Amino acid sequence: MKIDLNFSKDIIKEEELDSYEGDIFSIHNCLHSKDEYERMPLGWIDLPERYDGKEIENIKKTAYRLRSNSQAFISIGIGGSYLGSRAAVEMMQSDSPEIYFSGNNFSGTYIQQIVNKVKDKDFSICVISKSGTTLETAIAFRVFRDMLEKRYGKAEAKDRIIAITDKNKGALREIANKEGYETFEIPSNIGGRYSVLTPAALLTMAVAGINIEEVMKGARDAYSSYNDPKLQSNNCYRYSVLRNILYKKGKHIETLINYEPSMEYFGKWWQQLFGESEGKEGKGIFPAVLQFSTDLHSMGQYLQEGSKNVFETIIKVKNPPEDMNIPCFDDDIERLNYLKDMTFNDISNIAYKGAMKAHEEGGTPVISLEIPAIEEQCFGHMVYFMEKACAVSGYLLGVNPFDQPGVELYKKNMHKLLDR
Amino acid sequence: MKIDLNFSKDIIKEEELDSYEGDIFSIHNCLHSKDEYERMPLGWIDLPERYDGKEIENIKKTAYRLRSNSQAFISIGIGGSYLGSRAAVEMMQSDSPEIYFSGNNFSGTYIQQIVNKVKDKDFSICVISKSGTTLETAIAFRVFRDMLEKRYGKAEAKDRIIAITDKNKGALREIANKEGYETFEIPSNIGGRYSVLTPAALLTMAVAGINIEEVMKGARDAYSSYNDPKLQSNNCYRYSVLRNILYKKGKHIETLINYEPSMEYFGKWWQQLFGESEGKEGKGIFPAVLQFSTDLHSMGQYLQEGSKNVFETIIKVKNPPEDMNIPCFDDDIERLNYLKDMTFNDISNIAYKGAMKAHEEGGTPVISLEIPAIEEQCFGHMVYFMEKACAVSGYLLGVNPFDQPGVELYKKNMHKLLDR
Repeated sequence: MKIDLNFSKDIIKEEELDSYEGDIFSIHNCLHSKDEYERMPLGWIDLPERYDGKEIENIKKTAYRLRSNSQAFISIGIGGSYLGSRAAVEMMQSDSPEIYFSGNNFSGTYIQQIVNKVKDKDFSICVISKSGTTLETAIAFRVFRDMLEKRYGKAEAKDRIIAITDKNKGALREIANKEGYETFEIPSNIGGRYSVLTPAALLTMAVAGINIEEVMKGARDAYSSYNDPKLQSNNCYRYSVLRNILYKKGKHIETLINYEPSMEYFGKWWQQLFGESEGKEGKGIFPAVLQFSTDLHSMGQYLQEGSKNVFETIIKVKNPPEDMNIPCFDDDIERLNYLKDMTFNDISNIAYKGAMKAHEEGGTPVISLEIPAIEEQCFGHMVYFMEKACAVSGYLLGVNPFDQPGVELYKKNMHKLLDR
Repeated sequence: MKIDLNFSKDIIKEEELDSYEGDIFSIHNCLHSKDEYERMPLGWIDLPERYDGKEIENIKKTAYRLRSNSQAFISIGIGGSYLGSRAAVEMMQSDSPEIYFSGNNFSGTYIQQIVNKVKDKDFSICVISKSGTTLETAIAFRVFRDMLEKRYGKAEAKDRIIAITDKNKGALREIANKEGYETFEIPSNIGGRYSVLTPAALLTMAVAGINIEEVMKGARDAYSSYNDPKLQSNNCYRYSVLRNILYKKGKHIETLINYEPSMEYFGKWWQQLFGESEGKEGKGIFPAVLQFSTDLHSMGQYLQEGSKNVFETIIKVKNPPEDMNIPCFDDDIERLNYLKDMTFNDISNIAYKGAMKAHEEGGTPVISLEIPAIEEQCFGHMVYFMEKACAVSGYLLGVNPFDQPGVELYKKNMHKLLDR
């Protein structure tokens, strides 16, 4: 597959991109150098080429077992251990079991609702945390572990709990070893928000019936496509450069726009990826997520005529999974029978082109990324595209796209405030 | 009830607010004048005092009938005819029927999924559109009208279709008259995004089992509370003024933050209200919606250390509907047994205070709005609070907070592009 990239040529000239050729060449060589690989958590960059096929097999086997003994499955994690798998599940899940996401907030109401939903069902869980001490995740894990042990007894409960954590250290690793849980590993050289193509997200995806081998195939395809140091022919780098150009032109907000409602959580995963990678040292583009055409009837006003501090990045799916015709009525009072040869998706395409043109004319630049379909390979491809584009964006901005000192501060504060 | 308002006193001084006293006094008098009422769509401003109790009774009766003959209910609308009712349903629905929202996008996949969900259930629908020609809504209405007529025959289908539209004119009014649908009226002097307390949202809420009399009671309470021309004692006006002060200080992005996941769509309703009211003439604060503590693990980084162009408005619920204790384990490997006397909501309160303090120290100003609970009266109160705060914000910014020329342009373009 490929991602078609287009942008507002009236607002950005091709020559502006060309001036980044040298920078991109250097960043490419740096990112792919042995030194940088040892210095930075760059394990994600060549993962699609070197991942362990046997581990994928093991994930599939475990998922098969859980799918056969569970009507519901709870994926317990937050941040990078949450958004990637939820994005995939919302885009591609087609059958049972019911998938719930917990451990991503402190709301007593939210967790009680999940408890109510699974209390009369056979269920199993996975808990995803490198350290095992991230508080939202750790306390939700306690709730469902307790529920499983009371329901099934310790011996059976342990077969319904999967721990995804660091290979050797941390509280969750210790618990898993002691209790005899099956475990999968979050590689130590891959940060949370870059971990979608690791067990951190793959197990939940497989339990939801998503073909994870196809996901990895898509990522491998993207790895080759974007392993090209030449800016002109590398759409991933072109996206990074366009963002940087627009940021310098005062466009400090990027809205990621989907036309398919099932992609909302892909947007939220993207928001974490870029917000957490770039938002530091007083810099960074503010990433926001919108759904079209829904939000053309709300934020459309701002994008058309509001402050000129925004640009749009649209993900457009060429062939969405389903479609529908527009019924005719004899009386045709609203005069819509003329649409009888069009489908919903046909009209969506027209809205897409129309809104893009109107917003550009209103002074809001648009980058469009067209993908062929909402399928496993496309998902893997898009994930890798965004991860690499994000890393390059960070280097262009002059920040470290792999740390998150502000989030660590929050985690530390929480433990301090709780009086430990 | 009351809304407690607090803000970062290190960043904004009380004297800065005081300097707005005269402006606020004038805007208050203007908004409440007979002239302005005739000139502008201000029907929402005194609605809580003058609404028709008999209409509320009729909505309740219809809702009762639909609840008894429907396992599922589809609310078909977009923008102001969608977000308000969805906000209420997600916050407060406790029982059946299943509520679906359609007519808010062009995705063939999305509508097919709803068709699949209701196809083996008894269902009914309402369609909400002033004109009846808003395309997303009009074509979704065709799909479900067709489905109902084929399933139940025209005669029974008509009792399962409610039209909420203009009193006299428009395509939907014409269809309803011809087919004999029951109808409710969207008042002509209330714009879409200000229409939550009208049948546009109230019918769907009542079908979802929400007590709409209590909602109106909360709004009436808010009407009196914020009908006070003195800035110092009017928290609604203080919120508008704080926003304006921060906008002038270069904080061009406002994030509305909820700690309760069920309030996400309240955030999206707020986003439309403010984005569409202020985003014009090259001006306006960009409204974005975040969930905490979820997003403390993603956008938390940006808010702590990123570009200094953001402020936070937090809605904190003092007594959320449910809560849960944290189970103890004998081995206590993660060392969390010390939390045994705390609940999820206790920890949420600590996260709230901790994050607020840390973000303020990082240079991100915070406005906090504390509400007592997630209940009907609070919802009605909050809606009115935000509507009035939004109108006053528009006047302070010098834009008309009641029009949406950019959205009208999109709607017109769509019909043109479809070659009418």
